Amino acid sequence: MGLTTKHLLGIAPLSGADIELILETGRTFQEVQRRPIKKLATLRGKTLVLAFFEPSTRTRVSFEMAAQRLGADVVNITPEGSSLQKGESLLDTIKTLSAMRPHAIVIRHAGSGVPHWLAGHTDVPLINAGDGTHEHPTQALLDALTITDHKPALRGLQVAILGDILHSRVARSNIHLLSKMGARLALSGPPPLVPESLEKLAPGVRVHRRLETALAGADVVMMLRVQLERQREPLFNSAREYARHYCLTPERLALAKPDAIVMHPGPFLRGVDISGEVADSPRSVIPQQVDNGVAVRMALLYLLMPPPEETLPAEPTRAEAVPADIARSENR
Amino acid sequence: MGLTTKHLLGIAPLSGADIELILETGRTFQEVQRRPIKKLATLRGKTLVLAFFEPSTRTRVSFEMAAQRLGADVVNITPEGSSLQKGESLLDTIKTLSAMRPHAIVIRHAGSGVPHWLAGHTDVPLINAGDGTHEHPTQALLDALTITDHKPALRGLQVAILGDILHSRVARSNIHLLSKMGARLALSGPPPLVPESLEKLAPGVRVHRRLETALAGADVVMMLRVQLERQREPLFNSAREYARHYCLTPERLALAKPDAIVMHPGPFLRGVDISGEVADSPRSVIPQQVDNGVAVRMALLYLLMPPPEETLPAEPTRAEAVPADIARSENR
Amino acid sequence: MGLTTKHLLGIAPLSGADIELILETGRTFQEVQRRPIKKLATLRGKTLVLAFFEPSTRTRVSFEMAAQRLGADVVNITPEGSSLQKGESLLDTIKTLSAMRPHAIVIRHAGSGVPHWLAGHTDVPLINAGDGTHEHPTQALLDALTITDHKPALRGLQVAILGDILHSRVARSNIHLLSKMGARLALSGPPPLVPESLEKLAPGVRVHRRLETALAGADVVMMLRVQLERQREPLFNSAREYARHYCLTPERLALAKPDAIVMHPGPFLRGVDISGEVADSPRSVIPQQVDNGVAVRMALLYLLMPPPEETLPAEPTRAEAVPADIARSENR
Repeated sequence: MGLTTKHLLGIAPLSGADIELILETGRTFQEVQRRPIKKLATLRGKTLVLAFFEPSTRTRVSFEMAAQRLGADVVNITPEGSSLQKGESLLDTIKTLSAMRPHAIVIRHAGSGVPHWLAGHTDVPLINAGDGTHEHPTQALLDALTITDHKPALRGLQVAILGDILHSRVARSNIHLLSKMGARLALSGPPPLVPESLEKLAPGVRVHRRLETALAGADVVMMLRVQLERQREPLFNSAREYARHYCLTPERLALAKPDAIVMHPGPFLRGVDISGEVADSPRSVIPQQVDNGVAVRMALLYLLMPPPEETLPAEPTRAEAVPADIARSENR
Repeated sequence: MGLTTKHLLGIAPLSGADIELILETGRTFQEVQRRPIKKLATLRGKTLVLAFFEPSTRTRVSFEMAAQRLGADVVNITPEGSSLQKGESLLDTIKTLSAMRPHAIVIRHAGSGVPHWLAGHTDVPLINAGDGTHEHPTQALLDALTITDHKPALRGLQVAILGDILHSRVARSNIHLLSKMGARLALSGPPPLVPESLEKLAPGVRVHRRLETALAGADVVMMLRVQLERQREPLFNSAREYARHYCLTPERLALAKPDAIVMHPGPFLRGVDISGEVADSPRSVIPQQVDNGVAVRMALLYLLMPPPEETLPAEPTRAEAVPADIARSENR
Repeated sequence: MGLTTKHLLGIAPLSGADIELILETGRTFQEVQRRPIKKLATLRGKTLVLAFFEPSTRTRVSFEMAAQRLGADVVNITPEGSSLQKGESLLDTIKTLSAMRPHAIVIRHAGSGVPHWLAGHTDVPLINAGDGTHEHPTQALLDALTITDHKPALRGLQVAILGDILHSRVARSNIHLLSKMGARLALSGPPPLVPESLEKLAPGVRVHRRLETALAGADVVMMLRVQLERQREPLFNSAREYARHYCLTPERLALAKPDAIVMHPGPFLRGVDISGEVADSPRSVIPQQVDNGVAVRMALLYLLMPPPEETLPAEPTRAEAVPADIARSENR
């Protein structure tokens, strides 16, 4: 039994069973993460291409470590030094990479919907590592895994998502995932960045004018990054003004349930979107989110790039065509 | 029996037997490419340095995958962040890299002849991945492998090479290779970019004023990229004007033999040097060129970085000097 | 018996026994370097993060090859494309990387003391690959290893260090190391760059006004790079003027002992800080320094990221929680 999808383009196209399978597999890899030797031979002989056309440290490194720990090889593509500079279309770049027969391509791109569009033109599984303001599915999956480390189930949970929701692909993926799994969502933040139309995105979503109302009784508080690079016109005169209204302080957190956990996808701005005191408190699970990021991505790679014994048809062996000295395949 | 050369600096210095050996070995690795597990342990313990001082995606990634699939380790050098920025000479950079004892260095550089000059100063095998407007030998080798996938032999074939030949290292390497192997070459393109002096480059080369004459009766049509970055003064008012005269359209392709194949080293500009209709047609072998790029580079690395059992003299074992726990060499 | 330190932040905090242990282990890996197959499985399953926030070729590549030859996985972080661009603090970047559970992080940073400060906030071993004008400990260790390849012992040696000592982290680490090990040090260079206060840095250090006096009777001559990028105001009208006074020429070298060796951390400027004739002479050990760089870094990684059998407590095996097909750990 595997995923119902070949690519991971977003949370919206996944079924609840898909999500359960990824989380369940992620829990297995959490255990591997805690071993002194984290390396498995599961995906030895597989190649993963990381094509990040937008800056990233944490997501790229997390995918790279996940692949290495499963024994796969990794090749990095960067926008600088790429054929795109020579005028090649993105589609032809992906077709070219696909012709080299990698086993999956992870793509981050500033254009919303780009991975979905590319997936129609390649046989190689694509994994969306963030597309514009659309989706960032692996972040939502690692967030869900982190929540279930602390709460018995996602169903019935009250989750507050606070900040610049309009520009946040993290928020969008989380809303899809948590709604599918039966949580209730309270959104709030600067009014132009949290339009009421967000309630139509998924069942169980409520937009609140006041941050305090959204926080009331929350089991989970998810803060978002202020994405200054995606705002055409500044909405605030200063980071200080933003912080006064929307920073998660201990006082505001006190409105949530006493055992509420605090999450942030990072990178966070101390004293702007979250106070240092809250970020470093025992209620913050931010480092566990990062840790679970590797486990969830191992799970995904395992599910999308399955070991050959299980899923690939046996090829007619043409070993006689290969000189003995170069025929020794590593995985025999 | 191996190559008569230690470095791969260009096609011009290779013998016909060298070329045959590389293509024959490449065919073996084509077979490996089609296996679900593409990984061999052949070059385990070897290190390949990729020193690309000019932008590249496809060639760098192709070399990196080729090395990984043979089990070798890869280290990437980029011009940013390199000692060249601190005023070190390129020669001293290569000497420094050589002192770290890699088993081969792949170099791309904007200066024609640079790899040849460096090869006189290092013991490490150098592989030219493109030097200025001079040579790009692995491209010509993968092109030859692709042609022989479709035609019984190179000897006697009629090959048209069309476009900016003057600035094209791809064209230069292909002319050398195809001429050595007995093909006949018809060159055409914008007159300032296809001077008659090119006929002196190798036997069997004809320059044609009219594109149509060069195309007539061709078995193979090789289009070239318009390399705007190498032209000091623009020769055309617009890409559209270039396309009107030199783009490979279905109408022009109809002048070639009915079973002619269409090649392009990429990245290509749809509607400028090749029409989208031709590029995506069944006669286009562009994706196979990319696929064969990995196979040919595996062949080259295999021939230039041979497994130690075969070629390296046994060292006096000083295993007694090494603590048992760190002495376990991987390749025993 | 291992190092008395968990991190390698500088030479100053190391004991003489620590230094001896690293050099002794380095000698073992020199032997591995000379094998045709340089690869060991010693650190298989370990991950090393290379976080170079300043440009580097030789040091980064040296660490990368050292890790690969011990079987470890490597992940590169570059300042471009990092979360620092999104406003994240360096401390939070390191905390995030640490949460992904690498086994060590190598850091180079323009700020003196940065690795020391970060080490107070992470459990992951940090290795200083150069911090501002403070220390560059692995360079001093590879220099010491190179000296002992040519001289019976460090104790009692006369070492001249010449050039821009004020801005040189290489000089500072070498002064600490050589003084600890009983060598005598003669410093000289442009007066503003070699203040007398350097004598207080460690025992056995003498500042000389005249280059010639510092060179007299030297067993080892260490030249330094002119670090134009660290000088706020140019001290010299031209490289030629600097060379006239401070370049190591054959005439100046003749003042040292007849068997004196010449060292330079690189990258060097021929004809500015060292004459080409001297750099390429048999008395120059510059390529051996580079070679030993890999051996010393293998030693350090081996000592700071020890194989698990020896140092890590056995985890309660929860193998039953892991499906059999993904439980096969590579290192069993």
